[in-house]
Amino acid sequence: MDSPNRADFLAGFKPGGKYEGVEGVYRHNISADRIGIFDKEIVNGIAGHVKWIAHNGAGYDQIDVHECKAKGIYVSNTPGAVDDATATTGLYLMISAFRKYAAAERSLRAGTWKRAHKAGAAADLEDKTLAILGLGGIGLRMAEYTRPFRMRVLYHNRRKRTDVPEWCEYYGPERLDEMLAQADVLSVHVPLKKETEGLVDEGMIRKLKKGAIIINTARGKVIDEAAMIRALEDGHLSSVGLDVFPDEPEVNPRLLDFPNITLLPHMGTETRDSQKKMEIRALTNVRDYFTTGKGQDLVPEMA
Amino acid sequence: MDSPNRADFLAGFKPGGKYEGVEGVYRHNISADRIGIFDKEIVNGIAGHVKWIAHNGAGYDQIDVHECKAKGIYVSNTPGAVDDATATTGLYLMISAFRKYAAAERSLRAGTWKRAHKAGAAADLEDKTLAILGLGGIGLRMAEYTRPFRMRVLYHNRRKRTDVPEWCEYYGPERLDEMLAQADVLSVHVPLKKETEGLVDEGMIRKLKKGAIIINTARGKVIDEAAMIRALEDGHLSSVGLDVFPDEPEVNPRLLDFPNITLLPHMGTETRDSQKKMEIRALTNVRDYFTTGKGQDLVPEMA
Repeated sequence: MDSPNRADFLAGFKPGGKYEGVEGVYRHNISADRIGIFDKEIVNGIAGHVKWIAHNGAGYDQIDVHECKAKGIYVSNTPGAVDDATATTGLYLMISAFRKYAAAERSLRAGTWKRAHKAGAAADLEDKTLAILGLGGIGLRMAEYTRPFRMRVLYHNRRKRTDVPEWCEYYGPERLDEMLAQADVLSVHVPLKKETEGLVDEGMIRKLKKGAIIINTARGKVIDEAAMIRALEDGHLSSVGLDVFPDEPEVNPRLLDFPNITLLPHMGTETRDSQKKMEIRALTNVRDYFTTGKGQDLVPEMA
Repeated sequence: MDSPNRADFLAGFKPGGKYEGVEGVYRHNISADRIGIFDKEIVNGIAGHVKWIAHNGAGYDQIDVHECKAKGIYVSNTPGAVDDATATTGLYLMISAFRKYAAAERSLRAGTWKRAHKAGAAADLEDKTLAILGLGGIGLRMAEYTRPFRMRVLYHNRRKRTDVPEWCEYYGPERLDEMLAQADVLSVHVPLKKETEGLVDEGMIRKLKKGAIIINTARGKVIDEAAMIRALEDGHLSSVGLDVFPDEPEVNPRLLDFPNITLLPHMGTETRDSQKKMEIRALTNVRDYFTTGKGQDLVPEMA
């Protein structure tokens, strides 16, 4: 893909265009910098030619999968491949939020050692309660990382998972409030869809214990950012650890004012090991489709 | 202890002084800000009166324990109580060093999102090899934290421990070089004593793989800082994670120049949970001595 912009990209699929005959697309989010997200216009422009979009990444909110399905284009993502790296990011943010480490490093680098630190504001992870909103591969991996900390692990999905360890305690839709009331930390792992936009709203945040922590390594728009900021302002939340933001790469400047929170620039899968796993997985999916007629990792909407 | 300085403190133990009759001392490192460390002069000034010094902390390098022993003063510390909090610090520093997160947060806060980040410079912890120099309570706890990451765990002690899990692979004095050559990350957990000052020297650092990481949550002087800085300069070390420094609270300004390292202002045990555990443990030790004639947690030199 050497198109500098959307018009050039779409023109390439026209008869005699440079992409004529292309039936498989390997897609990385950085392509959006040049041609934009895979919205209806892009999907319609490649429909009739492309049979498979092999997306590199777990989250595929940049692809209009319903339009793809309507046009007979398969879409795969790379679940599993991202679990280790993203869950590690979640664990890091959680440790930093409990211990107030981001602020501590800033204090050291400002030449003031740990002057502003109060040990009373920091806590150990041991024996605290972690609530996972959306126990998929990433949430489960994060739960596994916290096992040596003896954390209690609760989770909320629409349906109970039968393939997870017993120590993951299930809280269904009718018991979501009960889960929130027990959580020292809520970690968000739901994909961004129309139904999950703003899911973690004022109501959900206020049902958490006073002093609770929220970790988000999923998508920024899953949380109502204004409600979260209000809860940080009045101390209902003691900290948050965020790897994702509603308008990336823009970060709400208000967030920079809270000393005790940790902010990462969407680093979830930014390692050579995980990038390699994701590339291999995505390319294998599209290759399998062409060689065997059947690829793996179709996104749920394709079913 | 309300003495503003050393002279006042020592005068208090003279006949008719304000500390007359004091036989037990509960000691916290912050007392050094006013009266200095427990060196020969302090120990001699309290000898004949004080029977037990209950130190709050695992490291007791601020107390001249040999002088205490010679004067018949018992010294206890608080091992165990610090394990969770210090090992968590080690894990945090290790994640940050592998993933380059400290630099990432600085980039976000500087308004440049992740511009300077290269995913190729970051790695997952999974399947890497952790070498622990000094497997005591803290090192073992850190090893436990890394189990879900499937890390291989090697350790070097003078003698093999028979009370640790089999997956902790022992490398004795004659195999130390062999351990270093396999380590992706070396984590330092030896106490500071005359024999351990500068233990991690040029020779030891150069025996690590190119691109290795060093984590230090023990004491700054255990590492030859100049040798470590040279290794960061020429890329032999890809990163370090340091919670401790040779001249705390001073930090060598040269360290601030390396973008990929993580520096914390000695936060090892700075949580309300661990401070409470340590206080209870230290006060219990001195109380037990007075009520039963026998306290716990005597430092090894007392044996």
